[in-house]
Amino acid sequence: MIKNDLFLRALQGETVERPPVWMMRQAGRYLPEFMAIREKYDFFTRCQTPELASEITVQPIRRYGMDAAILFSDILVIPQAMNIEVQMKPNFGPYLPEPIRKASDLDRVINPDIHESLGYVMEAIKMTKQKLNNEIPLIGFAGSPWTILCYCVQGQGSKSFDMAKGLCFSDPATAHSLLQKITDTTIGYLKEKVKAGCDVIQLFDSWGGMLSPTDYQEFSFRYIEQIINALKDMAPVIVFGKGCWFALREMAQSGASALGVDWTCSAQNARYLTGGKITLQGNFDPARLLSPPKTIKKMVKTMIDEFGKDRYIVNLGHGILPNIPIENAGAFIEAVKEYKV
Amino acid sequence: MIKNDLFLRALQGETVERPPVWMMRQAGRYLPEFMAIREKYDFFTRCQTPELASEITVQPIRRYGMDAAILFSDILVIPQAMNIEVQMKPNFGPYLPEPIRKASDLDRVINPDIHESLGYVMEAIKMTKQKLNNEIPLIGFAGSPWTILCYCVQGQGSKSFDMAKGLCFSDPATAHSLLQKITDTTIGYLKEKVKAGCDVIQLFDSWGGMLSPTDYQEFSFRYIEQIINALKDMAPVIVFGKGCWFALREMAQSGASALGVDWTCSAQNARYLTGGKITLQGNFDPARLLSPPKTIKKMVKTMIDEFGKDRYIVNLGHGILPNIPIENAGAFIEAVKEYKV
Repeated sequence: MIKNDLFLRALQGETVERPPVWMMRQAGRYLPEFMAIREKYDFFTRCQTPELASEITVQPIRRYGMDAAILFSDILVIPQAMNIEVQMKPNFGPYLPEPIRKASDLDRVINPDIHESLGYVMEAIKMTKQKLNNEIPLIGFAGSPWTILCYCVQGQGSKSFDMAKGLCFSDPATAHSLLQKITDTTIGYLKEKVKAGCDVIQLFDSWGGMLSPTDYQEFSFRYIEQIINALKDMAPVIVFGKGCWFALREMAQSGASALGVDWTCSAQNARYLTGGKITLQGNFDPARLLSPPKTIKKMVKTMIDEFGKDRYIVNLGHGILPNIPIENAGAFIEAVKEYKV
Repeated sequence: MIKNDLFLRALQGETVERPPVWMMRQAGRYLPEFMAIREKYDFFTRCQTPELASEITVQPIRRYGMDAAILFSDILVIPQAMNIEVQMKPNFGPYLPEPIRKASDLDRVINPDIHESLGYVMEAIKMTKQKLNNEIPLIGFAGSPWTILCYCVQGQGSKSFDMAKGLCFSDPATAHSLLQKITDTTIGYLKEKVKAGCDVIQLFDSWGGMLSPTDYQEFSFRYIEQIINALKDMAPVIVFGKGCWFALREMAQSGASALGVDWTCSAQNARYLTGGKITLQGNFDPARLLSPPKTIKKMVKTMIDEFGKDRYIVNLGHGILPNIPIENAGAFIEAVKEYKV
């Protein structure tokens, strides 16, 4: 049994003393202890070495005592396992030298043996669970198939992912074939993560907000639904679609235990669009952590008042930025722990 | 009197035979005739030479016969006139070598004499009006003060404009001082544009969607309102806030004649959020122009059916992409001209 089960209780919709709190990318570059490891080991070494991945995962917990840990990893381990090369270029981000741009490119995409290709993730989960010692739950995550397709086709980050969208709109059959392959691999991967010890699964649809509501249903949400359906009886699933306010209604009916929202969607709009019953997670603007700590604390209090303390998980509306002072991140966490109705 | 006044009538909310159509960035890189000029003259030469700017403005009209022209220019002529250097780097975009990052940086920002600094824009307007020969209206534009601040502070394009937001959140007094200076200059600039011949003004709030609803009111919309109030009795004002669905309610009450919406906001949501009475403009996903022309035509018909033919201006939901085939752009325009209820 997990000692601090606030996060799990909020996911089940139970009444809680205060909402649980964690931060997307909490194991990240704003932490000096993370930077110390980053100086010594490159990105994939950190991901693929269970000792390092588990250490990085628990670093923010030691410093701040969040109510959930999230395994240090990357959404792009999935295309990598599917035989699509992924490089992490310093000061550039992900780079996929052989992107998928046409039907014949799919020939080299494989449906991997999860243990063989991604066994290191399962080892990292087991080691992290030991380090966490049942104090708090552990979240495992994956990207949405659409978001993974964006990188597989574009070959790198982008403001508009116009090549990814171009493939979907000019050759939908190839796009759907790739999306289904990614979905199948992701389902196998997440099932193994739960078996290895993850208590909760979060899906990141980082680029879902680039699609129209109609295209979102066709190219993103129908695949997310497959993943939810395959996982929801094994573990609670949180779906976070950045910029996907327009799909919250369908998401609320999907079997997900909670929905992440970004800071452009007010608590009132989020509750209205989701029908008021599902647990919501978010939505502090990560750049607002650049405000003075006093302002942060006041804004967090207001945010909880607006969402309500129940059916709510305090988080940012996207990943924490590298340039956030550690005391400002601390003020964010403290404000939640100090919360009184 | 302007012969084809469909656009002006739609802005006034009149009943029309079919909705008017134009495309954001219609004078742009997807056109071979534009590329021919681009090969010979650099960005600022094109902006600052009235013969070139007016020629580029009318190129898409000659090819496709849109219902409105929009003067070829750039939103960054405003900071440039305010003594903030702006460079256009090939394959990089705008670069401002001396960004505004602290209060003392404001000392070098000037409130320019519009005729002295931006007289070339007025010359381009007069020349364009001659070339258009009263066939269709001419739109003049400016960036919103918030969007201009983003570039002035960040110094270049960005996915999150975290430095711009950082200034607003850590030193709001300096941010507001800069926003007010930009607003004052923009008002002076737009008044001169109308006097020189622009029939309609559009404000582009390209980065408004990066702000929370509360921060949007504080750092963007209150300055947009000042501009609307200063201009609305001289010419109809269209406000386009990309990603600003959450502010549509306030925008609809601002005195703007029309509101632009992007493709993440369905016609139904846009009509609901704006109260159903104001003219709307948009919202075809620019990447959807990569679909086959037949699909484009079908989707445009559906879009008009959903918005309704009245109080509606057909447009994209953002600027046209450089890689759109010219026949696909043609299909978009044709579909509107062929529209029957």
